[in-house]
Amino acid sequence: SISLINYDTDTLEERELPDVSGCLRFNDSQPISWINVYGLHDVDALKAIGDHFGLHPLVQEDIVNSQQRPKLEEFGDHLFIIARMVRYDSNTRQVGSEQISLVIGKGVVLSFQERPGDVFEGVHERLRKGRGRIRGAGAGYLGYALLDAIIDHYFAVLEVVGEEIEKLEVELLDSAQKEHLNRIHNLKREMLFMRRSVWPLREVVTGLIRDESPLISEAAAPFLRDVYDHIAQVTDAIDTFRELLSGLQDLYMSSVSNRMNDVMKVLTIFASIFVPLTFVAGIYGMNFEHMPELGWKWSYAIFWGAVVAIGGSMVTFFHRKGWL
Amino acid sequence: SISLINYDTDTLEERELPDVSGCLRFNDSQPISWINVYGLHDVDALKAIGDHFGLHPLVQEDIVNSQQRPKLEEFGDHLFIIARMVRYDSNTRQVGSEQISLVIGKGVVLSFQERPGDVFEGVHERLRKGRGRIRGAGAGYLGYALLDAIIDHYFAVLEVVGEEIEKLEVELLDSAQKEHLNRIHNLKREMLFMRRSVWPLREVVTGLIRDESPLISEAAAPFLRDVYDHIAQVTDAIDTFRELLSGLQDLYMSSVSNRMNDVMKVLTIFASIFVPLTFVAGIYGMNFEHMPELGWKWSYAIFWGAVVAIGGSMVTFFHRKGWL
Amino acid sequence: SISLINYDTDTLEERELPDVSGCLRFNDSQPISWINVYGLHDVDALKAIGDHFGLHPLVQEDIVNSQQRPKLEEFGDHLFIIARMVRYDSNTRQVGSEQISLVIGKGVVLSFQERPGDVFEGVHERLRKGRGRIRGAGAGYLGYALLDAIIDHYFAVLEVVGEEIEKLEVELLDSAQKEHLNRIHNLKREMLFMRRSVWPLREVVTGLIRDESPLISEAAAPFLRDVYDHIAQVTDAIDTFRELLSGLQDLYMSSVSNRMNDVMKVLTIFASIFVPLTFVAGIYGMNFEHMPELGWKWSYAIFWGAVVAIGGSMVTFFHRKGWL
Amino acid sequence: SISLINYDTDTLEERELPDVSGCLRFNDSQPISWINVYGLHDVDALKAIGDHFGLHPLVQEDIVNSQQRPKLEEFGDHLFIIARMVRYDSNTRQVGSEQISLVIGKGVVLSFQERPGDVFEGVHERLRKGRGRIRGAGAGYLGYALLDAIIDHYFAVLEVVGEEIEKLEVELLDSAQKEHLNRIHNLKREMLFMRRSVWPLREVVTGLIRDESPLISEAAAPFLRDVYDHIAQVTDAIDTFRELLSGLQDLYMSSVSNRMNDVMKVLTIFASIFVPLTFVAGIYGMNFEHMPELGWKWSYAIFWGAVVAIGGSMVTFFHRKGWL
Amino acid sequence: SISLINYDTDTLEERELPDVSGCLRFNDSQPISWINVYGLHDVDALKAIGDHFGLHPLVQEDIVNSQQRPKLEEFGDHLFIIARMVRYDSNTRQVGSEQISLVIGKGVVLSFQERPGDVFEGVHERLRKGRGRIRGAGAGYLGYALLDAIIDHYFAVLEVVGEEIEKLEVELLDSAQKEHLNRIHNLKREMLFMRRSVWPLREVVTGLIRDESPLISEAAAPFLRDVYDHIAQVTDAIDTFRELLSGLQDLYMSSVSNRMNDVMKVLTIFASIFVPLTFVAGIYGMNFEHMPELGWKWSYAIFWGAVVAIGGSMVTFFHRKGWL
Repeated sequence: SISLINYDTDTLEERELPDVSGCLRFNDSQPISWINVYGLHDVDALKAIGDHFGLHPLVQEDIVNSQQRPKLEEFGDHLFIIARMVRYDSNTRQVGSEQISLVIGKGVVLSFQERPGDVFEGVHERLRKGRGRIRGAGAGYLGYALLDAIIDHYFAVLEVVGEEIEKLEVELLDSAQKEHLNRIHNLKREMLFMRRSVWPLREVVTGLIRDESPLISEAAAPFLRDVYDHIAQVTDAIDTFRELLSGLQDLYMSSVSNRMNDVMKVLTIFASIFVPLTFVAGIYGMNFEHMPELGWKWSYAIFWGAVVAIGGSMVTFFHRKGWL
Repeated sequence: SISLINYDTDTLEERELPDVSGCLRFNDSQPISWINVYGLHDVDALKAIGDHFGLHPLVQEDIVNSQQRPKLEEFGDHLFIIARMVRYDSNTRQVGSEQISLVIGKGVVLSFQERPGDVFEGVHERLRKGRGRIRGAGAGYLGYALLDAIIDHYFAVLEVVGEEIEKLEVELLDSAQKEHLNRIHNLKREMLFMRRSVWPLREVVTGLIRDESPLISEAAAPFLRDVYDHIAQVTDAIDTFRELLSGLQDLYMSSVSNRMNDVMKVLTIFASIFVPLTFVAGIYGMNFEHMPELGWKWSYAIFWGAVVAIGGSMVTFFHRKGWL
Repeated sequence: SISLINYDTDTLEERELPDVSGCLRFNDSQPISWINVYGLHDVDALKAIGDHFGLHPLVQEDIVNSQQRPKLEEFGDHLFIIARMVRYDSNTRQVGSEQISLVIGKGVVLSFQERPGDVFEGVHERLRKGRGRIRGAGAGYLGYALLDAIIDHYFAVLEVVGEEIEKLEVELLDSAQKEHLNRIHNLKREMLFMRRSVWPLREVVTGLIRDESPLISEAAAPFLRDVYDHIAQVTDAIDTFRELLSGLQDLYMSSVSNRMNDVMKVLTIFASIFVPLTFVAGIYGMNFEHMPELGWKWSYAIFWGAVVAIGGSMVTFFHRKGWL
Repeated sequence: SISLINYDTDTLEERELPDVSGCLRFNDSQPISWINVYGLHDVDALKAIGDHFGLHPLVQEDIVNSQQRPKLEEFGDHLFIIARMVRYDSNTRQVGSEQISLVIGKGVVLSFQERPGDVFEGVHERLRKGRGRIRGAGAGYLGYALLDAIIDHYFAVLEVVGEEIEKLEVELLDSAQKEHLNRIHNLKREMLFMRRSVWPLREVVTGLIRDESPLISEAAAPFLRDVYDHIAQVTDAIDTFRELLSGLQDLYMSSVSNRMNDVMKVLTIFASIFVPLTFVAGIYGMNFEHMPELGWKWSYAIFWGAVVAIGGSMVTFFHRKGWL
Repeated sequence: SISLINYDTDTLEERELPDVSGCLRFNDSQPISWINVYGLHDVDALKAIGDHFGLHPLVQEDIVNSQQRPKLEEFGDHLFIIARMVRYDSNTRQVGSEQISLVIGKGVVLSFQERPGDVFEGVHERLRKGRGRIRGAGAGYLGYALLDAIIDHYFAVLEVVGEEIEKLEVELLDSAQKEHLNRIHNLKREMLFMRRSVWPLREVVTGLIRDESPLISEAAAPFLRDVYDHIAQVTDAIDTFRELLSGLQDLYMSSVSNRMNDVMKVLTIFASIFVPLTFVAGIYGMNFEHMPELGWKWSYAIFWGAVVAIGGSMVTFFHRKGWL
């Protein structure tokens, strides 16, 4: 499924296209075309698009193969960027990711994604309303805007993750459950995957800034540096979250140790008090014929006195040890 | 809320302004203006200030958005610096941080912060009293002084943290409590956040030194190197504190293990002494008709002898094992 | 055992050779020769091959000595590449590796491997069917294709490992067994060995790209960058797997701790309920002559009431502690 | 307190001075002056010295402020070096450190330290006896000699620490005590502080070598490389000690685990043998009227046989488990 | 003890010398002299040798002081190399190391070692038999050959260590003993020391390759790269061994935890089954006058039934928990 937006400062035209044949090729003239392609399973259609714009076979392969590492490749008349978008599924409470490919040529930007999603909604909106400088700037600026939208989406996901971590911490400090450990484990894995998705984008943006491709106008440099700052912020936040999660895991393990300690103490206190007393009771349950105490008048009262004395000294002992 | 200080070597004028319209723009002539803006929620006022001085829209955005990473950006006629100030709240015993933005232009320094705080008090004082070279030097020197004040505030916080760590260590070596673990956890998290705040300032200062911007006079270089040294010292101290805290956490865990060991020993000693004795007592509590020992005259005395012998050998055994 | 394939755009000739004497030396003319040598134990035959192509004695030694580190060496008229291929043995569920040496000269590519395997099958097939650009391109392209085939094989192995890790995780979350720990341990070791095999290939490919050897045509650069990307992806995946495995190990250890905790709780609950009750029963099993309770009518009923009360309060206590 | 030594190849003159006014300023002529200042609390005296030699105010501040990070700063006519000396206090068995500042100018070396100590004793001695090249060489060589003396002192401290670690290891392998953990913890903390003291000296010496200051003659380069090697050796040794200490900590934790295991085994063996036996004895202590075994002639003998059988099978069971 | 070997392509002359006076100094003419000095305690003799060849005093010191870090130093007419040789003592099963110093000058190679050992045996043999290019090449090649022999010795030691690790792993997976932990600890320490010995050699060889000293002919470059590869292999292997040993340590700790878990389970099962039963037996051992069950005919049979029922339900419970 292909959606085409042609725009210049004054006009904006949106269309859904069956195929790519009606699109302009890379060119210097107005208007700018943004061709957004959804669904990466129709290999033939994608090949048609790729051939229409003269994309290198390896580029075409990379677009279809959705497990690529983010990267930037420069060709004579276009730039090829692979990025990964993340998405938080509030039902499964899982972070998912999706590959997004961008081709930035003269006057044309191609974007390829699996499913229509909300990540480019904001850019779309700004184009329609003609807000900001987006309508007046070239294809390079549109490319920047799309990349920026992808990065900004990371912040949204990180915010949700941050809240989840704080909730986890509060719950953990209250009482550690096995289920918490699984949640920590899941969050750590998701941070690991987010880091892998965002980290190589650093090189992509550095490459864009450094190479001074004519496709990216000089005016875009501060905007790209801004994107770079955002990537650095995302990476920092992920690293901080990972350290926080490691801290929570330590806290969990300490809680388990502490609780085992508590369990042991209860056991030890009970056993240490009652086992000697039971022994004493056992003695006077013996059937020896010659046990003088058995016939004494105050034996039973003395026995209770001994019970209280032994029990009391035990309690004092444990109290002094700080176990009570 | 805007406070303006105009000063040159001889005069100093302080005013509270309703808006920025009365301020001079970037200029080469005397006097130097320091415009300190408190409160970042009034977006319109901030936009007015930004437009007055011709700040880039992204810069204006960065000032308002208070979760930025420290950074340095150079524009034609001004430098833009974002830094983070830390503050120790002695009530909650928490370290908080706040974003401070500086704009250093010709003859004008703008500083933006959330709340009026004591971090710039010292610079203010030095200006008022005309001490040191601050009154005679240019805007660049004032910028350095403000940056230096921010960094110096880290030392104050670190000193408090260092004392807390030492107190924690003494308490831990005395007896490990669950509450200690939470304090270690909190301190580790705070060190993590302080490190994230101070680390990127290194690049900021290196950038200032390297780029030899005309806004920063050459004479400022040793002062900037001094700031750099201070940042390095702060980072070193934070890293050392983090390692110390990890060491304390290990100590805590070892204490818990040791204590569990002690609990187990007590349990084992009690159980191992009294369980066999109880068994012996149980034997002679049996009601078999034909138990010759029951009728013997010295049975009971022999029983007590056996109790002492068994108990004594147990105690000896545990003593030899080093458990007593 | 030597297999020779001579090809140009139009023709393809395959032969098994007893020795290397019939082969062309490095030369500029068509056709391209691919000489694949299996079995590295016949040192004399290998020496004959090496001398035929004028390989440096150290190169010859490296080919035979199958524990080399992957590397690239350039000589006047040929490049020497050592790589390691990995292979998953589905019977032993072990990852094995094998050294593959490539010599890329003008018009000739030599490949040396221990056993005929399927890693070069794909290249062979493409040559035979004349698909893609492989038949038309030179020896450098064939070298690239072989290297690419080696790297691609890593993905196949990693996929199997990834599935194994997911299976392990599901099983671990269900119930941790000692056998899981051994599997984690084995997988970690295999990831360690795979990393050691693939990591130095990075330098090999960077060397090929940077050195711009005339043996590697400029057109090959994007293909080599593609190989480089694949190596980076393999390394990333291995690192991620290693972190996942560390996470699983933590999970395992936590499971063991949790289970020990559960065991302790059961023990403590049983002991704490029945030990005091047994003591009470022991009291009234004593044979003192003067125990007034023994003669009371309701003693036995009261005893049972006390048992229920003590047991019930214990259960309540443990319930409140969250142990039940 | 100021001690002045004027020397050239032939003469040596030592004096204690009340203040610095009598000293020569930086100059090219003979003799060389070494001015050693003890005690950093008399700020005015230090300011007088600093002003006498025209030291930058920040340098003067650094000398007084004794928590500086080691660093090298170059000024027109002098070099400023901050280093940290370490000292092992055999009473408290603690490693302490002290800041030493050096100013190397033409014909004059200033050294500032807190207390007169033995670290410069060797240099003093060599000057007095005129041994080696020290008397004939310039101020740069004296600066090197002082720096070298500081580094060499690290070796002395490391030797003591190394012996302590070895003693600790022997004791730990024999039997782990809680006190060992505290010693490991202390040593780790001291290694951390020593590393922080020595690490930045690397940059200091690299700076001296690289900058080729005219104050340091070219002939000094091999000597400085020698100092650099020594710093590298000290750093290596500290890192090795830290890894050894981590290993000892692991060993300690394993010992604690092992011992807990042993304790548990003893408990389990005792409980598992006597608890069933006690139950059996309890059965025949019951007062049921109809218990045929009670009247049998061989009951008691059979009971003992059962005790031996049960006890024996338990012992066999634990023996097979390897717990005995 | 000094052994001198003079050789050129045709002749070889071996002698034991009392002192170094008869040796040629650095010179361009044939034959090449290899002077091997054993024993570093006779400081005077070493000084005589050093002075004979004009070695720098610091070099002479480094040769005697046998705890140096491996390094390369270049002087006008000679190179000075310090390396460390490792040696496996099969009696103590310990890895020891020894400093070897090489001085490579024009036409002369000096080697200094503590004890005559087998590390240079192979080079000696190749010289005697005139095999390979060693007799024809210059002093630089001999230096390479000696360095190569030192590195190759690491492989021999690593092979023994590798076997030991594999043996340890098999034993650990079978059953973990305390003694295994000590062996892991020792091996880790030895790997640490081997890494410290071999790692700086990397810089030594890189320095030899990069500096293109006239003492090392250009033809030696591939040979030096070969040595470099070997050092990289040794370092890789050591790192892998260290990670394997860490893995084994984790395995050991897990085994200990698992075993403690098993011990706990046995204890819990025994206690949980017999403690309630003992309580029941205790009840009917009470001497209350009014206990109706005591007089019932089937009481004893019912008691046994209850015992079987309680015991059976416990066994079922533990079976379901997976503890049996």
